[in-house]
Amino acid sequence: MVQPSPSYTVALHMEVPASQRVVAKLVDTATATGAVVTGVDVSDSDGDSLVVDLTADTRDSVHRGELVEALSAIDGVIVENVGDSTFLAHVGGKIEIASKYPVRNRRDLARVYTPGVARVCKAIHDHPERARKLTIKKNTVAVVTDGTAVLGLGDIGPAAAMPVMEGKAILFKQFGGVDAWPVALDTKDPEEIIAICKAIAPAYGGINLEDIAAPKCFDIEARLREELDIPVFHDDQHGTAVVTLSALINALKVVGKRIEDVRIVLSGVGAAGSAIAKLLMAHGATDIVGYGRTGALHSGDTEGMNEHRKWLAENTNPRGVTGTLKEGLAGADVFIGVSSGNLLAPEDLDVMADGAIVFAMANPTPEVDPIGAADHVSVVATGRSDFPNQINNVLAFPGLFRGLLDTGITNISTELLRAAATGIASVISDAEISPVYIIPNAFDARVSAAVAAAVCRFAED
Amino acid sequence: MVQPSPSYTVALHMEVPASQRVVAKLVDTATATGAVVTGVDVSDSDGDSLVVDLTADTRDSVHRGELVEALSAIDGVIVENVGDSTFLAHVGGKIEIASKYPVRNRRDLARVYTPGVARVCKAIHDHPERARKLTIKKNTVAVVTDGTAVLGLGDIGPAAAMPVMEGKAILFKQFGGVDAWPVALDTKDPEEIIAICKAIAPAYGGINLEDIAAPKCFDIEARLREELDIPVFHDDQHGTAVVTLSALINALKVVGKRIEDVRIVLSGVGAAGSAIAKLLMAHGATDIVGYGRTGALHSGDTEGMNEHRKWLAENTNPRGVTGTLKEGLAGADVFIGVSSGNLLAPEDLDVMADGAIVFAMANPTPEVDPIGAADHVSVVATGRSDFPNQINNVLAFPGLFRGLLDTGITNISTELLRAAATGIASVISDAEISPVYIIPNAFDARVSAAVAAAVCRFAED
Repeated sequence: MVQPSPSYTVALHMEVPASQRVVAKLVDTATATGAVVTGVDVSDSDGDSLVVDLTADTRDSVHRGELVEALSAIDGVIVENVGDSTFLAHVGGKIEIASKYPVRNRRDLARVYTPGVARVCKAIHDHPERARKLTIKKNTVAVVTDGTAVLGLGDIGPAAAMPVMEGKAILFKQFGGVDAWPVALDTKDPEEIIAICKAIAPAYGGINLEDIAAPKCFDIEARLREELDIPVFHDDQHGTAVVTLSALINALKVVGKRIEDVRIVLSGVGAAGSAIAKLLMAHGATDIVGYGRTGALHSGDTEGMNEHRKWLAENTNPRGVTGTLKEGLAGADVFIGVSSGNLLAPEDLDVMADGAIVFAMANPTPEVDPIGAADHVSVVATGRSDFPNQINNVLAFPGLFRGLLDTGITNISTELLRAAATGIASVISDAEISPVYIIPNAFDARVSAAVAAAVCRFAED
Repeated sequence: MVQPSPSYTVALHMEVPASQRVVAKLVDTATATGAVVTGVDVSDSDGDSLVVDLTADTRDSVHRGELVEALSAIDGVIVENVGDSTFLAHVGGKIEIASKYPVRNRRDLARVYTPGVARVCKAIHDHPERARKLTIKKNTVAVVTDGTAVLGLGDIGPAAAMPVMEGKAILFKQFGGVDAWPVALDTKDPEEIIAICKAIAPAYGGINLEDIAAPKCFDIEARLREELDIPVFHDDQHGTAVVTLSALINALKVVGKRIEDVRIVLSGVGAAGSAIAKLLMAHGATDIVGYGRTGALHSGDTEGMNEHRKWLAENTNPRGVTGTLKEGLAGADVFIGVSSGNLLAPEDLDVMADGAIVFAMANPTPEVDPIGAADHVSVVATGRSDFPNQINNVLAFPGLFRGLLDTGITNISTELLRAAATGIASVISDAEISPVYIIPNAFDARVSAAVAAAVCRFAED
């Protein structure tokens, strides 16, 4: 059963009879529908009736409808307005531009704008490297999307992708002190996306590609890395890979195994899957078998192969395993899922080796029910916030870009990603590690500093 | 003689002997070079010597050098560091992204990011018009440049143009509450600039074209106006035209003339000149003669004509005037210069009609020395901040975009620009108008509200 969630918080504005009994009944009735009441405020009273604002978390919009209906059925209660706090938080957008210098008088104006600004422009023209010091470039990242693969919603277009990009900008700022700006492009043409990223680059110190459909996201990233002199990061691939590796490093400590020795089953051979395989192998993994819809990828595969499936087929599966995902679980030490929901039943995991590790990261529904899975394996992690061990990209990208911008590194190598992953993992000491605490939570302020520090150390070496 | 300016403020960090006499001599010596000392602070002392920070406005970098040399020549004074407050104000850039919602806990995260954000994305996908309410679009403007015509510096490129674009963003926010973001493009190709503006448009509620060279700026603007559903404004043309008309409205009141009756000499037939002519004619002007480098433009002109010179040749100069600018001044009521410095001597203005008006807006050096000109005509205005009556675009664009974004108007028509101009002019009451006060100053908080209100009234009509 899905739990009520703060992403479905409703605020009900009601007129109710002025009676202690009725107000109590409001809360009882709401609770009886399964809603979690988080606030009851009387905002007005005229003696006979009260105006009551009731705030409650619900499961979804169906539940919200049930709640409104149940409350309206109480004698004398009129539901006048139903607000949705998630939508209310988006009104007017979630980010804004702030000036670092208030312009109070002519002295200020002459410095930040004409005529003084002309000298700064000329200095940058004469010494282009000064742009990193004298403009926003050094602290600013473009969050670029074409809206073709937004969350689980698919190709919803650039305008509808904006709330995600704005949310990302909030996280960049809050966790990394990075100024990120949404660049939501009304084009799906990879060549045009590449050309635009190159054209807008003067203002930015880095580019974060986001929610662009595979396989074009790979080409765009590869081309931009080659043709731009600022770092280009594809969060859906590399962010996920970094956080997965950091979780695996600590999970292996829980079960007392070495990455070199474990058999890893990887469900999902798209953008994230191939990036995870590469990073895990760079960190020492030797036995990864990738599973797509047609079963295990192996070196004999030739049909329906894009570049990344091909890479996986040629570089993973050293034992030449064939067959289905479920068959592949037999004797495996680690299951990593970046595929789709409910592929497995918890009992399917029984065939795994002792001390098995399961990362079921499909969103919003994991590959296997994590609560059930916990009865069958040693460590379970998901991409969801409502279970322990959330494998969340927000642990990686703010600190990673903080480090990139501070050091001026432009090449996001696999070794750099490994450094970032070990930075995240190191936040939890060996004494603290447990099956339900292999990865720090999204609000752990130590994380982005640890990642940035790892990137800086990497730069020094 | 150029005056010391806050855009050339220096901060000198010096070690000096611990003596009242020497500190006094620092100030005397600095003042003797023509510098305006704005601060003397002792920041450290060890008994024998003091560390002194002296802040002073200078004329330019040559003067700064003289100042440093003069102070270093004082016995026992060591100038350890020379800071430049304009450059210091630019370190790290001048704007940043601010989040409207701090993400303190999972409840916040679930609302502004996943999973809650998915519902907002879906709502925009299903109802595209909701993007204006649920994203930053409604309050956000792109300040687009290719860096080909930056201030008086010319084609310095996009990176070097950034300090101007950031400064513009500060002014947009401070005076209009508009979130403006610099889009500095590393391409000079008009077709590519057009394609990029169209592609980035989903995030923006308007586009402000800035410092793009003529004549391509005209084509880019015209095409974008046709092909985009958000307002497109070319500040170098239309901003200047709006503020010029507002100044002329009040200047004509000073001299008691009507715009329909006056003879107007226009020096400069580029982007700004043609926009000014069109707007003045829409407001009733009947007799404008435009002057380029080859003299008066008239309907017989056929050589070296771009579209805008051609428009001027065909639609202005009803009396078929020929000859030089100086000849054209004879009997003219109004001189408007958007050309280049020192074209005229103050005495050249003596041939103008009684109650003559001179707007010498070339920057940084006006077409005629404004102090000298004031002895020969009734009203003088310039583009400079250090004379009365500054014709400054900051009076127009923040309030204009505030009004555009609030009303949703997408077509910036000549009638709308007239409305904005009368909005600026109306801030000064008839009782207040004087030869040295025809236009409000850049910091008059009433201006952008008056312009926005004028746009809103225009929308209602």
